[in-house]
Amino acid sequence: MKNILVTLDSNYLKPLKVMLKSLFINNRNEEFGIYLMHSAIKEEYLEDLNRFIEAEGSKLRIVHVDNSYFENAPTLLHYTKAMYYRLLAFKFLPEDLERILYLDPDILVINPVDKLYDIDIDNYLYAAAYHNMISIKGINRIRLNAYDIKEYYNSGVLFMNLKLQRETISEKEIFGFVENNRSKLIMPDQDIINSLYSQKIKSLDEKIYNYDARYYNYYKITSNGKCDMDYIINNTVFIHFCGKKKPWKKYYSGKFHSLYKHYEKLALNSVY
Amino acid sequence: MKNILVTLDSNYLKPLKVMLKSLFINNRNEEFGIYLMHSAIKEEYLEDLNRFIEAEGSKLRIVHVDNSYFENAPTLLHYTKAMYYRLLAFKFLPEDLERILYLDPDILVINPVDKLYDIDIDNYLYAAAYHNMISIKGINRIRLNAYDIKEYYNSGVLFMNLKLQRETISEKEIFGFVENNRSKLIMPDQDIINSLYSQKIKSLDEKIYNYDARYYNYYKITSNGKCDMDYIINNTVFIHFCGKKKPWKKYYSGKFHSLYKHYEKLALNSVY
Repeated sequence: MKNILVTLDSNYLKPLKVMLKSLFINNRNEEFGIYLMHSAIKEEYLEDLNRFIEAEGSKLRIVHVDNSYFENAPTLLHYTKAMYYRLLAFKFLPEDLERILYLDPDILVINPVDKLYDIDIDNYLYAAAYHNMISIKGINRIRLNAYDIKEYYNSGVLFMNLKLQRETISEKEIFGFVENNRSKLIMPDQDIINSLYSQKIKSLDEKIYNYDARYYNYYKITSNGKCDMDYIINNTVFIHFCGKKKPWKKYYSGKFHSLYKHYEKLALNSVY
Repeated sequence: MKNILVTLDSNYLKPLKVMLKSLFINNRNEEFGIYLMHSAIKEEYLEDLNRFIEAEGSKLRIVHVDNSYFENAPTLLHYTKAMYYRLLAFKFLPEDLERILYLDPDILVINPVDKLYDIDIDNYLYAAAYHNMISIKGINRIRLNAYDIKEYYNSGVLFMNLKLQRETISEKEIFGFVENNRSKLIMPDQDIINSLYSQKIKSLDEKIYNYDARYYNYYKITSNGKCDMDYIINNTVFIHFCGKKKPWKKYYSGKFHSLYKHYEKLALNSVY
């Protein structure tokens, strides 16, 4: 059984199904335990999701978070307390879970995930990929310059070492960091992971494990043509639809639009 | 059993597999008889194709054409006698076949074909779609203006009424037409069908049955936005990769590139 963590609200249930469908289709021989951390998704939606997942031979595990837990945690203007879920998942997940793969719902899984689970992260809190675009790196280095950041990791795909997190990560430290950096935080959970734990993240190849769907030409050129559509379709595991424009929205346009809609059709036409 | 006709040489065996794989995947409950008309494909390739098709629960039927049959037929500079296969298929196919669907190998089948087979073509030789782009229509009207052509049909998808063809189509007339129009013929088989049989073709909706992959924006704009990616993925049956740029080539780029490569991966990784 391979474990997947997702944390979301009702607005993302449709993309979640697309992500999960692509995961199931491209990992036919795996059984997944899908842990869904949430605070307010309606029971009927959870039941629907449960049937959807069971029809694929996997299991849904609901992790309900009572937000009173975060009563004393600092908040930010545009973010709910859900920004802490990913960071503090280890407190809510079963104690015997040692590894889990967190995935954003705006992802397509187009190849098997098994090799990722075999990566040795005994001495790391996470495995993740950073997006190597100069502009992204530069901006975030300047923004969070008080902290010793070598790379700015994207937190949309996080392979988590829950065991080490339980021993190492301090809720107080996180809350304190938010208090002290309110004005600087743009993507709070990602910023926190990078600022506090950058040294304890094992780097993954972004072209395989966190391919940013916006930058097809950039990847292709900087790889001297190697990372073309053929390479991606046959090697990339996670295509991540980063940014504001999402492939399930009406006016989206992009290199992976047709592929996304293909999986969306399969997900929404699933019989269960 | 639904029958499909393809006519090709060894160069197109890989795209053929992709086309067939997409057909099988999106028509899971159908059994297909795949009739392959050819003159010189090697036995080992035919055996491989046979295994590929049988693994999907369908049947390959080889229709070997001895080109001595076309000894007296006129030829054109850049075309082999294979240009007559599609036109005269009714002479080579089993006599009890009444209907067959001809498909080019540069097609993806992304939805069920069953509704097409239900179309009444009792009084037509073919059902086909014309590409309504003004430029395409205009050029071909001028080029073939001796003939009473209302629309210029694309012959990449042809639902054939073999029974009526046997009663109506004259080999002599076709050969005579080629003799008399040598200099005008650009796509000979398509030109012939349009020039001689235009009145006996039942029109299909090109957006459903012969979507030209080059013209996404054209279709979208002329349909007032209705024919967007969502519509195509859920309604279009045949996406046709017309023109010289093909999605299996290295430097291809287009709206359906990722989707094509997805099906290509499934076809080429098939276990059989």
